[in-house]
Amino acid sequence: MKLIRAVREMQTACAEMKRAGRRVALVPTMGALHEGHVALMRRARDHGAAVAVSIYVNPTQFGPREDLHQYPRDLEADCALCGQEFVDVVFAPSDEEMYPSGTGADEAGFQTSTWVEELALTKRLEGNRRPGHFRGVCTVVAKLFNIVAPNVAVFGQKDFQQLKVIQRMAGDLCYPVEVVSVSTVRESDGLACSSRNRYLSPEARAQATVLWKALSTAQDLFNGGEHNTHRLETAMIRTLQLAPMSRLDYVEIANVETLEPAVEARRGDVALLAVHIGKTRLIDNLIL
Amino acid sequence: MKLIRAVREMQTACAEMKRAGRRVALVPTMGALHEGHVALMRRARDHGAAVAVSIYVNPTQFGPREDLHQYPRDLEADCALCGQEFVDVVFAPSDEEMYPSGTGADEAGFQTSTWVEELALTKRLEGNRRPGHFRGVCTVVAKLFNIVAPNVAVFGQKDFQQLKVIQRMAGDLCYPVEVVSVSTVRESDGLACSSRNRYLSPEARAQATVLWKALSTAQDLFNGGEHNTHRLETAMIRTLQLAPMSRLDYVEIANVETLEPAVEARRGDVALLAVHIGKTRLIDNLIL
Repeated sequence: MKLIRAVREMQTACAEMKRAGRRVALVPTMGALHEGHVALMRRARDHGAAVAVSIYVNPTQFGPREDLHQYPRDLEADCALCGQEFVDVVFAPSDEEMYPSGTGADEAGFQTSTWVEELALTKRLEGNRRPGHFRGVCTVVAKLFNIVAPNVAVFGQKDFQQLKVIQRMAGDLCYPVEVVSVSTVRESDGLACSSRNRYLSPEARAQATVLWKALSTAQDLFNGGEHNTHRLETAMIRTLQLAPMSRLDYVEIANVETLEPAVEARRGDVALLAVHIGKTRLIDNLIL
Repeated sequence: MKLIRAVREMQTACAEMKRAGRRVALVPTMGALHEGHVALMRRARDHGAAVAVSIYVNPTQFGPREDLHQYPRDLEADCALCGQEFVDVVFAPSDEEMYPSGTGADEAGFQTSTWVEELALTKRLEGNRRPGHFRGVCTVVAKLFNIVAPNVAVFGQKDFQQLKVIQRMAGDLCYPVEVVSVSTVRESDGLACSSRNRYLSPEARAQATVLWKALSTAQDLFNGGEHNTHRLETAMIRTLQLAPMSRLDYVEIANVETLEPAVEARRGDVALLAVHIGKTRLIDNLIL
């Protein structure tokens, strides 16, 4: 497994793999890899492609009061895991590589003056709570697409809105990249795997199962014939309230393509939620 | 020479050329080809590359009161010229191909919900006069880069700010594309070749030489030791006023990298101007 730190070197390495007739699958991550990422890597390999994993905590997708600086980083463990999973290349650039300081630099010194922004799917949910988040995501993913030129890029369904935004962006901008999604991997008690789970105290970890319980409640009620979104959302909120450390950000049942709120819940709609458990903000979702 | 109208087909054709070991040079145009475009095609061929010329009047870079609908279109003549110049592929997509109507569509039916925008170099000059213009340019060029995946893209210096914006965009977004510029081609009387010259009445055409005269005036004064930007700009304005059909939009002496106004003109700065001749708006520039 190769570890590459420089943009130019990664570009050359990926171009060489493609010239040698290999397809390339990209798994973009922020590191602190877990079983969810492993599922992405395995799906990438299933495509018979050379697997490139990017590990980069992208500063431009964090808000000023968010967890950029405390976000878990452990490149050594991440590389060990990638090695076990037969990853071909790990791309772990520095901020200076990804956002060279220069004419377009802001006070922090790292900046770009060019942004990629999706304007339809990013207005609500995470986009509404985290201004600038998806602009940062789209910009860094566009850069990774231009560096790796993958045939396939693999994203997890856990970040459902991100998945939809990236699919839209890839289509709108004519990227010749197939954006593939992988089902959320969960712990045995239902908690969705997330690097941010590392923030949870033992007590918070125990209560964090309430996200999955709320989604399961909605699923059960829906399967039992309840299609009224207000009642489904209320049932989710009541379930969340069973955890004393939980503080609701949003629950919503939305159309999977437009991410607009569903008036009446239908099979194939998605239930999404964002909840603080203590100081940790977690998100999850489930297709009804 | 191949003429391709569909995005997917162009993507495949370009990928095949690259798989066969050829470099690909892209010349993005809006058609109505003239000697300036010929110079771009020849430069593209000089790179030893397969030459792809895109011909597309991109609606998203025109303002609501601009000349989108009257912009000259003559695909047959354009293709004949490309054939003479040994172009390998002409890509002439429809609006529906480039901006498929769909979820992100606006009232006009053609839209994208993803945009590429450069924010530093586009504030002034053309960007200031034509809101949204460079957002449209960056977005369509990003799409063309993703469709063609060129090794080289060739742009004319006549659209100086556009050249700088595209170079910045390509760098910021890590496109593995060398953005090459070609000197402005001029008629024998100095008028810069432009598709919009076709709008000029014989009288307006005669008076349009005043743009070049104004730039030459600035160059002569500068070479004679005049470095005061105010005096250089005033001299250009006085020259422009010699043409009764001319109406000034802007003249400016700017730094070539930042496009910020020069305080004191220096060798290598650029004099830029935009002038209406009758109903036709023309731009031109000259490096001092």
